[in-house]
Amino acid sequence: MISANLPTINASRLWERLEQLGNIGARAEGGICRLALSDADKQGRDLVVRWMRELDLDISIDPIGNVVGVMAGQTDGKCVMVGSHIDTVSTAGIFDGNLGVLAGLEVIATCQDNGIRPYHPLAVAFFTNEEGSRFAPDMMGSAVFNGSLPLETALNTVGIDGARVEDELKAIDYAGSTRHEPTSQWVKAFVELHVEQGPVLDLEQLDIGIVEGVQGISWQKINIKGQSNHAGTTPMQYRRDAGLMAAQATAFAHQLTQQLGAGQLATVGAIVLHPNLINVIPHSAEFTLDLRNCDEATLKSAEKEFAQFMDEQCQAALLTYSSKHLARFAPVQFDPELIDKVEAISQQFGYSSRRMFSGAGHDAQMFAPNCPTTMIFVPSIKGISHNPEEYTLCEQIEKGANVLFNLVIDLASE
Amino acid sequence: MISANLPTINASRLWERLEQLGNIGARAEGGICRLALSDADKQGRDLVVRWMRELDLDISIDPIGNVVGVMAGQTDGKCVMVGSHIDTVSTAGIFDGNLGVLAGLEVIATCQDNGIRPYHPLAVAFFTNEEGSRFAPDMMGSAVFNGSLPLETALNTVGIDGARVEDELKAIDYAGSTRHEPTSQWVKAFVELHVEQGPVLDLEQLDIGIVEGVQGISWQKINIKGQSNHAGTTPMQYRRDAGLMAAQATAFAHQLTQQLGAGQLATVGAIVLHPNLINVIPHSAEFTLDLRNCDEATLKSAEKEFAQFMDEQCQAALLTYSSKHLARFAPVQFDPELIDKVEAISQQFGYSSRRMFSGAGHDAQMFAPNCPTTMIFVPSIKGISHNPEEYTLCEQIEKGANVLFNLVIDLASE
Repeated sequence: MISANLPTINASRLWERLEQLGNIGARAEGGICRLALSDADKQGRDLVVRWMRELDLDISIDPIGNVVGVMAGQTDGKCVMVGSHIDTVSTAGIFDGNLGVLAGLEVIATCQDNGIRPYHPLAVAFFTNEEGSRFAPDMMGSAVFNGSLPLETALNTVGIDGARVEDELKAIDYAGSTRHEPTSQWVKAFVELHVEQGPVLDLEQLDIGIVEGVQGISWQKINIKGQSNHAGTTPMQYRRDAGLMAAQATAFAHQLTQQLGAGQLATVGAIVLHPNLINVIPHSAEFTLDLRNCDEATLKSAEKEFAQFMDEQCQAALLTYSSKHLARFAPVQFDPELIDKVEAISQQFGYSSRRMFSGAGHDAQMFAPNCPTTMIFVPSIKGISHNPEEYTLCEQIEKGANVLFNLVIDLASE
Repeated sequence: MISANLPTINASRLWERLEQLGNIGARAEGGICRLALSDADKQGRDLVVRWMRELDLDISIDPIGNVVGVMAGQTDGKCVMVGSHIDTVSTAGIFDGNLGVLAGLEVIATCQDNGIRPYHPLAVAFFTNEEGSRFAPDMMGSAVFNGSLPLETALNTVGIDGARVEDELKAIDYAGSTRHEPTSQWVKAFVELHVEQGPVLDLEQLDIGIVEGVQGISWQKINIKGQSNHAGTTPMQYRRDAGLMAAQATAFAHQLTQQLGAGQLATVGAIVLHPNLINVIPHSAEFTLDLRNCDEATLKSAEKEFAQFMDEQCQAALLTYSSKHLARFAPVQFDPELIDKVEAISQQFGYSSRRMFSGAGHDAQMFAPNCPTTMIFVPSIKGISHNPEEYTLCEQIEKGANVLFNLVIDLASE
């Protein structure tokens, strides 16, 4: 698959761009903060757009502020698109999202350095508000791009600071007028290079994650009601301890992951007891449950078994409970052919790799229903993510970008 | 034991005093707040002292503000003392503590109404800062009275509002000068009537709790350290989830109570996770463990088994933890002869009763090492305590006060 004489990307150029973009929105305490549509986001956008211009790309901005730069191909056919996002959470490192966009620029630059003009056009895109830290939902720009979120809904979204998306787009001058055709009609394939944001590649000392899809997510908030009583004067058999039930439910969710197999994840990340005092039996416990699986049927089993546990145990303990889904996404499967190609290219380079699912959401999942799509992961040191200490070595990024470059050239040449 | 023609107490007079004292420090939202040595506490003290004067008691105040009123006996021998406290928590009902003091006055009044002058003097006392809500430790006055807390330490205690005990005693004019002899030299026996503050008597529809002692208490704060990671990208086997371990420890503490028998109590009343977010594995979990038992050996077993669980499980899960004892009291045993007397009197009245331990701390436990001591419990409706909804029926109080009166007359007659 790798052409014998196909060039490799320029890692130091890519790294320098990562650092330059990473200087925008830098925090005094370390890391960066470029919340979507903030002034720092505008500065970041302006820099990437300047680089797109320097590469002579044909730049368009759509009404939700997604920016696409296109290098013409030998024909006017569908483009091969590389993309991600450049907005960040409030305590970010410099890689999350930015890598996928700047690696796209590096793919273009490598073509130009070597006089390569693919048969199909190449497009590099960054999508508005992938993180969702300021405006919900996350993956907003790519959802609108792919027709799964109405533009008007997105424009009218009010953020955590009371700002409205449309007003903020206008304020930073990124409310564009381009109306793209549906993705299926002009995007031949979509590829996103991203840091793993998990520990697997780092722990297993692998170069490349071949991403088969994105896990399904089930987020619930569960509220147990019991009765507060004195911890010293209330015999065990007369208690209605909401905190104990929350603890038992947490332990059960962990047992479920063992019972349902390695693919099932369960996390109780947040809990609040009332009154939360050392010598008072809690009358209420509110906790969150995050269940994930690549397989929808198993994810549904996990939800069902947990609900059954709560029904039975709360009834037995004279407690009541309510649960509310905060989010529910079915798993996304990426394109088998593209997955095979990523694996083959990695092998040809001699890069170690493994197939895996993404545990986090990504812009790519919005493309998956509309065009052949996949992702390439590079390691996150210690799996650290959404944290100033997020880090990936330059040589790891180089390998990921080489795989991306080869995949894109392969897809654009057909 | 009950003299055939021994009178009974005047329940409506006792109830009226409870209500009158309960008007002092009344909160707009219901219930009362008379924190130790506050202006409301002074008003409450002044009212009780006025009633002591009306009963012609010989009143003394010691340097920690404990007030004792004595009715002379036929001899100058040791007195039989009845007492409790009139300070309250910030959201109190009108019974906790107050009942024991005002029932003491009712014992005296009943003697006087019926021309009874016991052989031994009778004393009624209220002790400073039993609740410990403003100044730690709780049971401060009775601890100083019984020589288990140095006076100077108590006087120099600074409260949650920055006030110093000695200054506040002077400000409300209750820094007395009486230096009592050691308890063992002038108190023949100590008896405290109190509301149960638990649900047992109410649930079992019993009149009288025959209190055999006070449970031992072990309070720990446990801090587990793991590592925060993304809930979606971190496989179960690579997690170091401090929150999960806290949940498993909570469930284990509950199992311990089943394993060690009905007398063992365990409560995890408070927990705080960090960062406490739905999609982040907690890197730290801080929780409290309240263990109680009437039997010191079993309480020690519970502590030991819990520590062993934490050692083994944290090591297996690559977590670290630390634990700190916030409080540790050995169980207190009351006097077997007095306990038998309470039971016999209850039976003679035809009151239903059961033997039980106190789950909460009381002034009486400070007397137990120094003189024959016991307590009498009356039901708390639904076990509600330290709450404006604390309630005990007048007829239940009447029964408790009748048992108290008969016990005191019996002890003072010997």
